[in-house]
Amino acid sequence: MGNKTAGDHPQDVDAFGAPPNVCRAQREGAIGIFDSGVGGLTVFQAVAARLPDEPIVYLGDTARVPYGTKSPETVVRYAQSCAGILLARGVKLLVVACNTASAFALDALRASVEVPVIGVVEPGARAALGRTRNRRIGVIGTSGTVSSGAYLRAIRALSPDSEVFAQACPLFVPLAEEGWTEGEVPRAVAREYLRPLLNNAIDTLILGCTHYPLLARTIGAVSGPGVTLVDSAAETAQAVAATLEDLGLRAQSTGPARREFLVTDAPEVFTRVAKRFLDAELHNVEWVDF
Amino acid sequence: MGNKTAGDHPQDVDAFGAPPNVCRAQREGAIGIFDSGVGGLTVFQAVAARLPDEPIVYLGDTARVPYGTKSPETVVRYAQSCAGILLARGVKLLVVACNTASAFALDALRASVEVPVIGVVEPGARAALGRTRNRRIGVIGTSGTVSSGAYLRAIRALSPDSEVFAQACPLFVPLAEEGWTEGEVPRAVAREYLRPLLNNAIDTLILGCTHYPLLARTIGAVSGPGVTLVDSAAETAQAVAATLEDLGLRAQSTGPARREFLVTDAPEVFTRVAKRFLDAELHNVEWVDF
Repeated sequence: MGNKTAGDHPQDVDAFGAPPNVCRAQREGAIGIFDSGVGGLTVFQAVAARLPDEPIVYLGDTARVPYGTKSPETVVRYAQSCAGILLARGVKLLVVACNTASAFALDALRASVEVPVIGVVEPGARAALGRTRNRRIGVIGTSGTVSSGAYLRAIRALSPDSEVFAQACPLFVPLAEEGWTEGEVPRAVAREYLRPLLNNAIDTLILGCTHYPLLARTIGAVSGPGVTLVDSAAETAQAVAATLEDLGLRAQSTGPARREFLVTDAPEVFTRVAKRFLDAELHNVEWVDF
Repeated sequence: MGNKTAGDHPQDVDAFGAPPNVCRAQREGAIGIFDSGVGGLTVFQAVAARLPDEPIVYLGDTARVPYGTKSPETVVRYAQSCAGILLARGVKLLVVACNTASAFALDALRASVEVPVIGVVEPGARAALGRTRNRRIGVIGTSGTVSSGAYLRAIRALSPDSEVFAQACPLFVPLAEEGWTEGEVPRAVAREYLRPLLNNAIDTLILGCTHYPLLARTIGAVSGPGVTLVDSAAETAQAVAATLEDLGLRAQSTGPARREFLVTDAPEVFTRVAKRFLDAELHNVEWVDF
């Protein structure tokens, strides 16, 4: 434990006050974040901003993207494959940044891996409940996320009286990846998708897919000023920080920590699209096998 | 060989005039067609119409769709995996119905499998050259197909003087899969994509992705009456028929033959979207592992 030894301290608490079953190697592991592709970088960004001293390994499963149109069985299979890649790199906590994978694979992952697993659905639900006044909450997401009913269950578990209106928006992901985030086409698409939600007088709209924050201006313009948009990134980062604290897993280093980026397909497209998400260049994106 | 025996005939030609190295088991194998998903059903339909007495096994790689945004390496890997699934079912000829896989993986497949392999790019190029009058040909396709330059090479090989103008149209696939094939949104998307091609005075436009025939009305309306749309389905079916004849591989049965449909992800979505492609219900779609 650096220049201290366990012998300097009572046997049941180590040098940093962590529970006795947490060893230094665990604390020094990175936070592992995975997504079907580039969208989860919105979550990466929030976690990195909240925990600048924590090393982070981000994995984009670009060879098998998208997850949102695939079956629960296939999404679970891919999520477990991603978890395996990150666990092989010694991560101490897993963040499932993809809403579809959070909706379908969280229980399977929690049952099969030995590190804490945090999804984005519950944080998103909590964020929405912190904003709504009329308890009429809209959720937009992939076909998979919407058909799973995960947001409905998460919101009702916290607030049984809330009304939830969900709408799949499959074209938003390709629009965001294409960079068509404003103008005639995305506005027409958004009008079409949001009409039923707006007709239901929602006052809060969960951007239930990590790609959607890129379309927030268009979605906000179509929704109007009476609807608050929420995404789960900041709330997820908060959940990650709290979990690390609770389990004595916070890194002991100070200052900027390492950030690694892994992808399952050739890095070029990821690097290019990532620029739009992070508004910064990514260097050294590593292509890993799966 | 049915109720005839090889002994009834000269040794170097069998009962049906096939070359001596073609056995009955080979002729009785099915035609194997694969695509990244549902789009290749447009090719399936043309082959089935041209060769109603030939058994066909169609494989949609729905767990890994789309191919059009992925790297050449990954597309080759997936194409070889699909070929393996079909070859394990004893197919006598492989049709790569996906333009992206045809563009990236045809050489690799031909080098690694022992049955004839037919792609859709060369038939599409031939179809376009049969229609153009001014030899200014537009090609629309996925990012992968367009960046591969495969259509340019195929057209120039047949007609060195032709001018080829290519445009990637990534939103057309999700629009077709969503069933948004006519109306305000697809028309706005088509106007945006087709403008540079129309500015180049093309008179022929290759629908270089098996999904695009679903959008033909919108693409045709935006292109105007001076542009002829061509897809490779009919020409590919013609190439399949000619290859089977040349190699003595035509089925000896008469009457309607079996059609099998395999998918790598849950069949429900495939079956639903297939209805739009075939205008008929598919029964008994089989979910296979990969």
